Amino acid sequence: MRDFIERFEMGEENYLPHISIDCVIFGLSDDALKVLLLKVKDTESWVLPGGYVEKDESIEDAALHILRDRTGLSNIYLQQFNTTGSSGRSFPEDIKVICKSLGVKWTPDLWANKRFISIGYYALIDIEKCKPTGGDLDQEYSWIDMHRLPRLMMDHKDILLKAYESLKISLSNQPVGINLLPEKFTMPELQKMYEIILDKSIERSHFQKKMLRFDIFERLEERREGVPHKRPFLYRFDEKKYRDGVKKGARFDV
Amino acid sequence: MRDFIERFEMGEENYLPHISIDCVIFGLSDDALKVLLLKVKDTESWVLPGGYVEKDESIEDAALHILRDRTGLSNIYLQQFNTTGSSGRSFPEDIKVICKSLGVKWTPDLWANKRFISIGYYALIDIEKCKPTGGDLDQEYSWIDMHRLPRLMMDHKDILLKAYESLKISLSNQPVGINLLPEKFTMPELQKMYEIILDKSIERSHFQKKMLRFDIFERLEERREGVPHKRPFLYRFDEKKYRDGVKKGARFDV
Repeated sequence: MRDFIERFEMGEENYLPHISIDCVIFGLSDDALKVLLLKVKDTESWVLPGGYVEKDESIEDAALHILRDRTGLSNIYLQQFNTTGSSGRSFPEDIKVICKSLGVKWTPDLWANKRFISIGYYALIDIEKCKPTGGDLDQEYSWIDMHRLPRLMMDHKDILLKAYESLKISLSNQPVGINLLPEKFTMPELQKMYEIILDKSIERSHFQKKMLRFDIFERLEERREGVPHKRPFLYRFDEKKYRDGVKKGARFDV
Repeated sequence: MRDFIERFEMGEENYLPHISIDCVIFGLSDDALKVLLLKVKDTESWVLPGGYVEKDESIEDAALHILRDRTGLSNIYLQQFNTTGSSGRSFPEDIKVICKSLGVKWTPDLWANKRFISIGYYALIDIEKCKPTGGDLDQEYSWIDMHRLPRLMMDHKDILLKAYESLKISLSNQPVGINLLPEKFTMPELQKMYEIILDKSIERSHFQKKMLRFDIFERLEERREGVPHKRPFLYRFDEKKYRDGVKKGARFDV
Protein backbone atom coordinates (compact mmCIF):
# COMPACT_ATOMS: atom_id res chain seq x y z
CA MET A 1 0.00 0.00 0.00
CA ARG A 2 2.86 2.36 0.91
CA ASP A 3 4.35 1.52 -2.51
CA PHE A 4 1.14 2.45 -4.16
CA ILE A 5 0.81 5.81 -2.39
CA GLU A 6 4.37 6.70 -3.40
CA ARG A 7 3.58 5.68 -6.97
CA PHE A 8 0.48 7.81 -7.01
CA GLU A 9 1.92 10.96 -5.47
CA MET A 10 5.51 10.97 -6.61
CA GLY A 11 5.49 8.95 -9.79
CA GLU A 12 7.70 11.41 -11.60
CA GLU A 13 10.75 10.22 -9.63
CA ASN A 14 10.44 6.62 -10.73
CA TYR A 15 8.42 6.53 -13.91
CA LEU A 16 8.32 8.06 -17.37
CA PRO A 17 5.89 10.97 -17.14
CA HIS A 18 2.57 10.97 -19.02
CA ILE A 19 2.77 7.26 -19.92
CA SER A 20 0.61 4.56 -18.39
CA ILE A 21 -0.11 0.91 -19.12
CA ASP A 22 -3.53 -0.72 -18.88
CA CYS A 23 -4.00 -4.47 -18.97
CA VAL A 24 -7.10 -6.35 -20.08
CA ILE A 25 -6.90 -9.93 -18.82
CA PHE A 26 -9.19 -12.39 -20.54
CA GLY A 27 -10.14 -15.85 -19.38
CA LEU A 28 -12.87 -18.41 -20.09
CA SER A 29 -15.24 -19.87 -17.53
CA ASP A 30 -18.83 -21.08 -17.40
CA ASP A 31 -18.97 -20.90 -21.20
CA ALA A 32 -18.35 -17.14 -21.17
CA LEU A 33 -15.51 -14.76 -21.91
CA LYS A 34 -14.47 -13.10 -18.66
CA VAL A 35 -12.26 -10.16 -17.88
CA LEU A 36 -10.37 -9.56 -14.63
CA LEU A 37 -11.39 -6.28 -13.01
CA LEU A 38 -10.36 -4.66 -9.73
CA LYS A 39 -12.90 -2.96 -7.51
CA VAL A 40 -12.07 0.40 -6.01
CA LYS A 41 -12.64 -0.02 -2.27
CA ASP A 42 -15.79 1.46 -0.76
CA THR A 43 -17.21 2.27 -4.20
CA GLU A 44 -19.23 0.48 -6.84
CA SER A 45 -16.62 1.27 -9.51
CA TRP A 46 -14.09 -0.97 -11.16
CA VAL A 47 -10.81 -0.44 -12.95
CA LEU A 48 -8.46 -2.37 -15.22
CA PRO A 49 -5.15 -3.40 -13.65
CA GLY A 50 -2.75 -0.67 -14.67
CA GLY A 51 0.40 1.20 -13.78
CA TYR A 52 3.40 3.06 -15.12
CA VAL A 53 6.69 2.46 -16.94
CA GLU A 54 9.90 2.66 -14.90
CA LYS A 55 12.58 4.87 -16.39
CA ASP A 56 14.86 1.93 -17.24
CA GLU A 57 12.25 -0.66 -18.19
CA SER A 58 10.77 -1.62 -21.58
CA ILE A 59 7.03 -1.15 -22.04
CA GLU A 60 6.58 -4.96 -22.35
CA ASP A 61 8.42 -5.51 -19.06
CA ALA A 62 6.34 -2.78 -17.47
CA ALA A 63 3.15 -4.59 -18.54
CA LEU A 64 4.42 -7.92 -17.13
CA HIS A 65 5.59 -6.18 -13.98
CA ILE A 66 2.19 -4.51 -13.48
CA LEU A 67 0.37 -7.79 -14.01
CA ARG A 68 2.59 -9.54 -11.49
CA ASP A 69 2.35 -6.78 -8.87
CA ARG A 70 -1.34 -6.04 -9.24
CA THR A 71 -2.73 -9.54 -9.73
CA GLY A 72 0.01 -12.02 -8.81
CA LEU A 73 -0.02 -13.45 -12.35
CA SER A 74 3.15 -14.28 -14.26
CA ASN A 75 4.21 -16.23 -17.33
CA ILE A 76 1.26 -15.26 -19.47
CA TYR A 77 0.50 -14.45 -23.10
CA LEU A 78 0.52 -10.68 -23.62
CA GLN A 79 -0.39 -8.74 -26.73
CA GLN A 80 -0.19 -4.98 -27.22
CA PHE A 81 -3.39 -3.82 -28.89
CA ASN A 82 -3.69 -0.02 -28.89
CA THR A 83 -2.30 3.20 -27.49
CA THR A 84 -4.86 5.79 -26.50
CA GLY A 85 -3.93 9.44 -26.13
CA SER A 86 -6.63 12.03 -26.70
CA SER A 87 -5.76 15.60 -25.81
CA GLY A 88 -6.26 16.28 -22.11
CA ARG A 89 -6.81 12.62 -21.25
CA SER A 90 -6.75 13.05 -17.47
CA PHE A 91 -9.29 12.04 -14.85
CA PRO A 92 -8.92 14.20 -11.71
CA GLU A 93 -12.46 13.41 -10.51
CA ASP A 94 -11.85 9.68 -10.70
CA ILE A 95 -8.44 10.10 -9.08
CA LYS A 96 -10.19 11.94 -6.22
CA VAL A 97 -12.44 8.93 -5.63
CA ILE A 98 -9.49 6.53 -5.74
CA CYS A 99 -7.51 8.73 -3.34
CA LYS A 100 -10.43 8.74 -0.92
CA SER A 101 -10.72 4.96 -1.05
CA LEU A 102 -6.97 4.66 -0.38
CA GLY A 103 -6.88 7.30 2.35
CA VAL A 104 -4.52 9.51 0.33
CA LYS A 105 -4.95 13.30 0.33
CA TRP A 106 -5.98 14.49 -3.13
CA THR A 107 -4.38 17.71 -4.39
CA PRO A 108 -4.69 19.29 -7.85
CA ASP A 109 -0.97 18.87 -8.53
CA LEU A 110 -0.90 15.14 -7.78
CA TRP A 111 1.16 13.28 -10.39
CA ALA A 112 -1.71 10.90 -11.16
CA ASN A 113 -3.94 13.83 -12.26
CA LYS A 114 -1.80 14.59 -15.29
CA ARG A 115 -2.48 13.78 -18.89
CA PHE A 116 -1.59 10.15 -19.64
CA ILE A 117 -1.07 8.30 -22.89
CA SER A 118 -2.06 4.72 -22.13
CA ILE A 119 -0.50 1.73 -23.86
CA GLY A 120 -2.94 -1.18 -23.81
CA TYR A 121 -2.03 -4.86 -23.51
CA TYR A 122 -4.36 -7.80 -23.38
CA ALA A 123 -3.47 -11.06 -21.68
CA LEU A 124 -4.99 -14.49 -22.32
CA ILE A 125 -4.89 -16.96 -19.48
CA ASP A 126 -6.20 -20.31 -18.42
CA ILE A 127 -8.25 -19.30 -15.38
CA GLU A 128 -7.80 -22.73 -13.82
CA LYS A 129 -4.03 -22.48 -13.93
CA CYS A 130 -3.50 -18.84 -13.01
CA LYS A 131 -5.04 -17.73 -9.78
CA PRO A 132 -4.77 -13.99 -9.30
CA THR A 133 -3.90 -12.87 -5.79
CA GLY A 134 -5.22 -9.42 -4.89
CA GLY A 135 -1.74 -8.03 -5.55
CA ASP A 136 -0.11 -5.10 -3.84
CA LEU A 137 -3.32 -3.11 -3.57
CA ASP A 138 -5.14 -5.95 -1.88
CA GLN A 139 -8.21 -4.94 -3.89
CA GLU A 140 -11.22 -7.07 -4.51
CA TYR A 141 -10.90 -8.60 -7.98
CA SER A 142 -13.43 -10.48 -10.02
CA TRP A 143 -13.74 -12.32 -13.30
CA ILE A 144 -16.59 -10.49 -14.98
CA ASP A 145 -18.60 -11.53 -18.03
CA MET A 146 -17.69 -9.35 -21.04
CA HIS A 147 -21.40 -8.98 -21.75
CA ARG A 148 -22.27 -7.84 -18.22
CA LEU A 149 -19.75 -5.15 -17.44
CA PRO A 150 -20.16 -3.01 -14.32
CA ARG A 151 -19.39 0.74 -14.14
CA LEU A 152 -15.76 1.25 -15.07
CA MET A 153 -13.76 4.32 -14.10
CA MET A 154 -11.98 6.70 -16.44
CA ASP A 155 -12.13 5.48 -20.06
CA HIS A 156 -11.45 1.88 -19.09
CA LYS A 157 -14.61 0.59 -20.75
CA ASP A 158 -13.48 1.99 -24.12
CA ILE A 159 -10.05 0.43 -23.61
CA LEU A 160 -11.64 -2.91 -22.72
CA LEU A 161 -13.91 -2.89 -25.79
CA LYS A 162 -10.94 -2.08 -28.02
CA ALA A 163 -9.05 -5.03 -26.54
CA TYR A 164 -12.03 -7.30 -27.23
CA GLU A 165 -12.25 -6.12 -30.87
CA SER A 166 -8.54 -6.70 -31.26
CA LEU A 167 -8.77 -10.19 -29.72
CA LYS A 168 -11.55 -11.13 -32.16
CA ILE A 169 -9.47 -9.98 -35.14
CA SER A 170 -6.39 -11.84 -33.88
CA LEU A 171 -8.38 -15.01 -33.27
CA SER A 172 -9.71 -14.89 -36.82
CA ASN A 173 -6.11 -14.99 -38.08
CA GLN A 174 -4.03 -16.94 -35.55
CA PRO A 175 -4.75 -19.59 -32.92
CA VAL A 176 -4.05 -17.17 -30.02
CA GLY A 177 -7.06 -18.55 -28.17
CA ILE A 178 -5.19 -21.70 -27.16
CA ASN A 179 -3.69 -19.56 -24.38
CA LEU A 180 -7.14 -19.54 -22.81
CA LEU A 181 -7.38 -23.35 -22.77
CA PRO A 182 -5.69 -25.97 -20.62
CA GLU A 183 -2.67 -27.69 -22.17
CA LYS A 184 -4.81 -30.59 -23.38
CA PHE A 185 -8.18 -29.92 -24.95
CA THR A 186 -10.73 -31.59 -27.18
CA MET A 187 -11.92 -30.32 -30.57
CA PRO A 188 -15.37 -29.52 -29.11
CA GLU A 189 -13.66 -27.47 -26.38
CA LEU A 190 -11.56 -25.64 -28.98
CA GLN A 191 -14.67 -24.94 -31.03
CA LYS A 192 -16.55 -23.70 -27.96
CA MET A 193 -13.71 -21.25 -27.27
CA TYR A 194 -13.97 -19.81 -30.79
CA GLU A 195 -17.75 -19.60 -30.53
CA ILE A 196 -17.65 -17.80 -27.19
CA ILE A 197 -15.11 -15.19 -28.29
CA LEU A 198 -16.45 -14.60 -31.79
CA ASP A 199 -19.99 -14.70 -30.34
CA LYS A 200 -21.42 -16.89 -33.08
CA SER A 201 -22.04 -20.55 -33.71
CA ILE A 202 -19.68 -22.43 -36.01
CA GLU A 203 -20.55 -25.49 -38.06
CA ARG A 204 -18.90 -28.48 -36.37
CA SER A 205 -17.51 -30.62 -39.18
CA HIS A 206 -16.30 -27.62 -41.18
CA PHE A 207 -14.52 -26.31 -38.06
CA GLN A 208 -12.82 -29.61 -37.23
CA LYS A 209 -11.69 -30.18 -40.80
CA LYS A 210 -10.21 -26.68 -40.94
CA MET A 211 -8.43 -27.01 -37.60
CA LEU A 212 -6.94 -30.39 -38.45
CA ARG A 213 -5.83 -29.12 -41.86
CA PHE A 214 -3.77 -26.43 -40.08
CA ASP A 215 -1.63 -29.33 -38.80
CA ILE A 216 -0.67 -27.51 -35.59
CA PHE A 217 -2.49 -29.73 -33.10
CA GLU A 218 -1.08 -33.04 -31.92
CA ARG A 219 -3.68 -35.72 -31.25
CA LEU A 220 -2.87 -37.57 -28.03
CA GLU A 221 -3.67 -41.16 -27.19
CA GLU A 222 -5.85 -39.98 -24.32
CA ARG A 223 -9.53 -39.14 -24.48
CA ARG A 224 -11.57 -36.75 -22.33
CA GLU A 225 -13.21 -38.82 -19.60
CA GLY A 226 -16.49 -38.12 -17.85
CA VAL A 227 -18.34 -36.61 -20.76
CA PRO A 228 -21.57 -38.00 -22.18
CA HIS A 229 -21.60 -39.94 -25.48
CA LYS A 230 -18.39 -40.75 -27.33
CA ARG A 231 -15.34 -39.64 -25.37
CA PRO A 232 -13.48 -37.14 -27.60
CA PHE A 233 -9.73 -37.29 -28.18
CA LEU A 234 -7.45 -34.82 -26.45
CA TYR A 235 -5.17 -32.53 -28.50
CA ARG A 236 -2.16 -30.42 -27.68
CA PHE A 237 -0.97 -27.29 -29.51
CA ASP A 238 2.32 -27.85 -31.38
CA GLU A 239 4.19 -24.55 -31.06
CA LYS A 240 7.02 -25.65 -33.39
CA LYS A 241 4.71 -26.71 -36.22
CA TYR A 242 2.87 -23.43 -35.81
CA ARG A 243 6.08 -21.36 -36.03
CA ASP A 244 7.18 -23.34 -39.11
CA GLY A 245 3.77 -22.74 -40.69
CA VAL A 246 3.99 -18.99 -40.03
CA LYS A 247 7.46 -18.90 -41.62
CA LYS A 248 6.08 -20.62 -44.71
CA GLY A 249 3.28 -18.06 -44.90
CA ALA A 250 0.48 -20.40 -43.79
CA ARG A 251 -2.75 -18.73 -42.69
CA PHE A 252 -4.72 -19.85 -39.68
CA ASP A 253 -7.98 -18.07 -40.35
CA VAL A 254 -11.30 -19.39 -39.10
CA MET B 1 14.42 24.94 -40.33
CA ARG B 2 14.52 27.25 -37.32
CA ASP B 3 11.36 25.45 -36.10
CA PHE B 4 13.11 22.17 -36.45
CA ILE B 5 16.18 23.25 -34.51
CA GLU B 6 13.98 24.51 -31.68
CA ARG B 7 12.09 21.23 -31.75
CA PHE B 8 15.29 19.24 -31.57
CA GLU B 9 17.02 21.18 -28.80
CA MET B 10 14.21 22.39 -26.63
CA GLY B 11 11.42 19.94 -27.24
CA GLU B 12 10.57 19.68 -23.56
CA GLU B 13 8.93 23.12 -23.62
CA ASN B 14 6.44 22.23 -26.34
CA TYR B 15 6.07 18.47 -26.40
CA LEU B 16 5.31 15.57 -24.08
CA PRO B 17 8.68 14.18 -23.04
CA HIS B 18 9.83 10.69 -24.07
CA ILE B 19 7.06 10.26 -26.66
CA SER B 20 7.57 10.32 -30.40
CA ILE B 21 5.49 9.48 -33.46
CA ASP B 22 6.79 7.69 -36.54
CA CYS B 23 4.80 7.50 -39.76
CA VAL B 24 5.08 4.85 -42.44
CA ILE B 25 3.46 6.15 -45.62
CA PHE B 26 2.56 3.49 -48.18
CA GLY B 27 1.69 4.03 -51.81
CA LEU B 28 1.53 1.94 -54.99
CA SER B 29 3.42 2.65 -58.19
CA ASP B 30 5.03 0.66 -60.98
CA ASP B 31 3.33 -2.49 -59.66
CA ALA B 32 5.20 -2.25 -56.36
CA LEU B 33 4.46 -1.27 -52.79
CA LYS B 34 6.41 1.89 -52.00
CA VAL B 35 7.18 3.70 -48.79
CA LEU B 36 7.96 7.41 -48.43
CA LEU B 37 11.37 7.98 -46.84
CA LEU B 38 13.31 11.14 -46.10
CA LYS B 39 17.04 11.34 -46.74
CA VAL B 40 19.27 12.89 -44.11
CA LYS B 41 21.25 15.59 -45.97
CA ASP B 42 24.87 14.84 -46.82
CA THR B 43 24.51 11.21 -45.75
CA GLU B 44 23.40 7.95 -47.33
CA SER B 45 20.90 7.34 -44.54
CA TRP B 46 17.15 7.62 -44.54
CA VAL B 47 14.49 8.11 -41.88
CA LEU B 48 10.74 7.78 -41.53
CA PRO B 49 8.82 11.04 -41.24
CA GLY B 50 8.43 11.55 -37.50
CA GLY B 51 8.00 14.03 -34.72
CA TYR B 52 6.56 14.68 -31.29
CA VAL B 53 3.22 15.19 -29.52
CA GLU B 54 2.33 18.72 -28.43
CA LYS B 55 1.23 19.04 -24.83
CA ASP B 56 -2.38 19.84 -25.76
CA GLU B 57 -2.76 17.63 -28.84
CA SER B 58 -4.09 14.09 -29.26
CA ILE B 59 -1.70 11.45 -30.60
CA GLU B 60 -3.83 11.12 -33.78
CA ASP B 61 -3.69 14.88 -34.37
CA ALA B 62 0.06 14.79 -33.74
CA ALA B 63 0.46 12.13 -36.44
CA LEU B 64 -1.63 14.14 -38.94
CA HIS B 65 0.24 17.31 -37.99
CA ILE B 66 3.62 15.60 -38.51
CA LEU B 67 2.56 14.24 -41.88
CA ARG B 68 1.37 17.67 -43.00
CA ASP B 69 4.48 19.51 -41.76
CA ARG B 70 7.06 17.00 -42.88
CA THR B 71 5.60 15.90 -46.20
CA GLY B 72 2.85 18.38 -47.13
CA LEU B 73 0.28 15.57 -47.13
CA SER B 74 -3.17 15.98 -45.59
CA ASN B 75 -6.53 14.23 -45.63
CA ILE B 76 -5.16 10.70 -45.64
CA TYR B 77 -6.02 7.31 -44.18
CA LEU B 78 -4.05 6.74 -40.96
CA GLN B 79 -3.89 3.60 -38.85
CA GLN B 80 -2.03 3.17 -35.58
CA PHE B 81 -0.15 -0.13 -35.70
CA ASN B 82 2.30 -0.46 -32.80
CA THR B 83 4.04 1.35 -29.98
CA THR B 84 7.67 0.51 -29.50
CA GLY B 85 9.45 1.18 -26.22
CA SER B 86 12.41 -0.98 -25.33
CA SER B 87 14.44 0.09 -22.32
CA GLY B 88 17.00 2.75 -23.20
CA ARG B 89 15.59 3.26 -26.71
CA SER B 90 17.71 6.31 -27.57
CA PHE B 91 20.04 6.96 -30.50
CA PRO B 92 22.63 9.60 -29.60
CA GLU B 93 25.01 8.49 -32.40
CA ASP B 94 22.30 8.87 -35.03
CA ILE B 95 21.22 12.18 -33.51
CA LYS B 96 24.86 13.33 -33.85
CA VAL B 97 24.77 12.60 -37.59
CA ILE B 98 21.42 14.37 -38.00
CA CYS B 99 22.71 17.39 -36.01
CA LYS B 100 25.74 17.60 -38.26
CA SER B 101 23.60 17.49 -41.39
CA LEU B 102 21.39 20.27 -39.98
CA GLY B 103 24.28 22.39 -38.72
CA VAL B 104 23.12 22.06 -35.10
CA LYS B 105 25.65 21.65 -32.28
CA TRP B 106 25.29 18.21 -30.70
CA THR B 107 25.54 17.99 -26.92
CA PRO B 108 24.95 14.97 -24.67
CA ASP B 109 22.00 16.66 -22.92
CA LEU B 110 20.12 17.46 -26.13
CA TRP B 111 16.43 16.69 -25.74
CA ALA B 112 16.44 14.48 -28.83
CA ASN B 113 19.02 12.13 -27.25
CA LYS B 114 16.60 10.95 -24.58
CA ARG B 115 14.75 7.67 -24.40
CA PHE B 116 11.64 7.78 -26.62
CA ILE B 117 8.61 5.56 -26.78
CA SER B 118 7.48 5.72 -30.39
CA ILE B 119 3.85 5.39 -31.44
CA GLY B 120 3.67 4.09 -35.01
CA TYR B 121 1.06 5.05 -37.60
CA TYR B 122 0.85 3.90 -41.16
CA ALA B 123 -0.80 5.93 -43.88
CA LEU B 124 -2.22 4.65 -47.18
CA ILE B 125 -2.33 7.11 -50.04
CA ASP B 126 -2.96 7.32 -53.74
CA ILE B 127 0.44 8.50 -54.96
CA GLU B 128 -1.11 10.19 -57.99
CA LYS B 129 -3.40 12.32 -55.85
CA CYS B 130 -1.08 13.20 -52.98
CA LYS B 131 2.18 14.83 -53.88
CA PRO B 132 4.53 15.21 -50.93
CA THR B 133 6.26 18.60 -50.85
CA GLY B 134 9.38 17.90 -48.83
CA GLY B 135 7.88 19.77 -45.90
CA ASP B 136 9.49 22.02 -43.32
CA LEU B 137 12.84 20.24 -43.39
CA ASP B 138 13.16 20.61 -47.13
CA GLN B 139 14.69 17.14 -47.18
CA GLU B 140 15.02 14.92 -50.19
CA TYR B 141 12.19 12.39 -50.10
CA SER B 142 11.63 9.33 -52.20
CA TRP B 143 9.10 6.60 -52.77
CA ILE B 144 11.14 3.47 -52.16
CA ASP B 145 10.26 -0.12 -53.01
CA MET B 146 9.48 -2.10 -49.80
CA HIS B 147 11.68 -4.89 -51.13
CA ARG B 148 14.69 -2.63 -51.82
CA LEU B 149 15.09 -0.62 -48.65
CA PRO B 150 18.17 1.56 -48.16
CA ARG B 151 20.01 2.00 -44.84
CA LEU B 152 17.56 3.38 -42.31
CA MET B 153 18.62 5.25 -39.18
CA MET B 154 17.75 4.32 -35.61
CA ASP B 155 15.30 1.37 -35.48
CA HIS B 156 13.21 2.69 -38.34
CA LYS B 157 13.60 -0.47 -40.40
CA ASP B 158 12.03 -2.55 -37.61
CA ILE B 159 9.20 -0.04 -37.33
CA LEU B 160 8.66 -0.13 -41.09
CA LEU B 161 8.56 -3.94 -41.20
CA LYS B 162 6.05 -3.99 -38.33
CA ALA B 163 3.86 -1.55 -40.24
CA TYR B 164 4.02 -3.78 -43.31
CA GLU B 165 3.05 -6.88 -41.28
CA SER B 166 0.18 -4.96 -39.78
CA LEU B 167 -0.98 -3.71 -43.20
CA LYS B 168 -1.00 -7.30 -44.54
CA ILE B 169 -3.12 -8.49 -41.61
CA SER B 170 -5.53 -5.56 -41.97
CA LEU B 171 -5.85 -6.12 -45.70
CA SER B 172 -6.73 -9.76 -45.12
CA ASN B 173 -9.69 -8.62 -43.00
CA GLN B 174 -10.87 -5.26 -44.34
CA PRO B 175 -10.70 -3.46 -47.68
CA VAL B 176 -8.24 -0.84 -46.34
CA GLY B 177 -6.26 -1.08 -49.54
CA ILE B 178 -8.82 0.98 -51.47
CA ASN B 179 -7.09 4.01 -49.92
CA LEU B 180 -4.11 3.21 -52.15
CA LEU B 181 -6.21 3.27 -55.32
CA PRO B 182 -7.77 6.12 -57.29
CA GLU B 183 -11.47 6.73 -56.65
CA LYS B 184 -12.46 4.63 -59.65
CA PHE B 185 -10.71 1.33 -60.28
CA THR B 186 -11.23 -1.91 -62.16
CA MET B 187 -11.41 -5.39 -60.65
CA PRO B 188 -8.02 -6.29 -62.21
CA GLU B 189 -6.52 -3.19 -60.58
CA LEU B 190 -8.06 -4.10 -57.23
CA GLN B 191 -6.69 -7.64 -57.56
CA LYS B 192 -3.23 -6.35 -58.50
CA MET B 193 -3.20 -4.20 -55.34
CA TYR B 194 -3.97 -7.26 -53.17
CA GLU B 195 -1.32 -9.30 -54.98
CA ILE B 196 1.36 -6.64 -54.56
CA ILE B 197 0.76 -6.12 -50.85
CA LEU B 198 0.20 -9.75 -49.91
CA ASP B 199 3.08 -10.69 -52.21
CA LYS B 200 1.31 -13.65 -53.80
CA SER B 201 -0.79 -14.35 -56.83
CA ILE B 202 -4.53 -14.72 -56.42
CA GLU B 203 -6.82 -16.77 -58.64
CA ARG B 204 -8.81 -14.28 -60.77
CA SER B 205 -12.36 -15.62 -60.88
CA HIS B 206 -12.33 -16.63 -57.21
CA PHE B 207 -11.13 -13.13 -56.30
CA GLN B 208 -13.74 -11.30 -58.35
CA LYS B 209 -16.58 -13.49 -57.07
CA LYS B 210 -15.49 -12.87 -53.49
CA MET B 211 -15.14 -9.11 -53.94
CA LEU B 212 -18.53 -8.75 -55.63
CA ARG B 213 -20.17 -10.90 -52.95
CA PHE B 214 -18.98 -8.37 -50.33
CA ASP B 215 -21.41 -5.93 -51.99
CA ILE B 216 -19.33 -2.87 -51.09
CA PHE B 217 -18.27 -1.85 -54.61
CA GLU B 218 -20.54 0.08 -56.93
CA ARG B 219 -20.16 -0.81 -60.61
CA LEU B 220 -20.17 2.34 -62.75
CA GLU B 221 -21.40 2.69 -66.30
CA GLU B 222 -17.88 3.65 -67.39
CA ARG B 223 -15.15 1.29 -68.52
CA ARG B 224 -11.40 1.71 -68.35
CA GLU B 225 -10.23 3.02 -71.72
CA GLY B 226 -6.89 2.46 -73.37
CA VAL B 227 -6.26 -1.07 -72.15
CA PRO B 228 -5.77 -4.05 -74.42
CA HIS B 229 -8.54 -6.64 -74.93
CA LYS B 230 -11.95 -6.20 -73.33
CA ARG B 231 -12.24 -2.85 -71.54
CA PRO B 232 -13.01 -3.64 -67.88
CA PHE B 233 -15.77 -1.87 -65.91
CA LEU B 234 -14.85 0.77 -63.34
CA TYR B 235 -15.94 0.39 -59.73
CA ARG B 236 -16.18 2.73 -56.78
CA PHE B 237 -15.98 1.84 -53.07
CA ASP B 238 -19.31 2.32 -51.27
CA GLU B 239 -18.38 3.53 -47.78
CA LYS B 240 -21.97 3.39 -46.49
CA LYS B 241 -22.56 -0.20 -47.57
CA TYR B 242 -19.24 -1.12 -46.00
CA ARG B 243 -20.14 0.52 -42.64
CA ASP B 244 -23.54 -1.21 -42.69
CA GLY B 245 -21.82 -4.52 -43.40
CA VAL B 246 -19.40 -4.05 -40.50
CA LYS B 247 -22.32 -3.26 -38.17
CA LYS B 248 -24.03 -6.48 -39.22
CA GLY B 249 -20.83 -8.44 -38.51
CA ALA B 250 -19.92 -9.07 -42.17
CA ARG B 251 -16.33 -10.17 -42.79
CA PHE B 252 -14.24 -8.88 -45.65
CA ASP B 253 -11.46 -11.44 -45.65
CA VAL B 254 -9.54 -12.36 -48.78
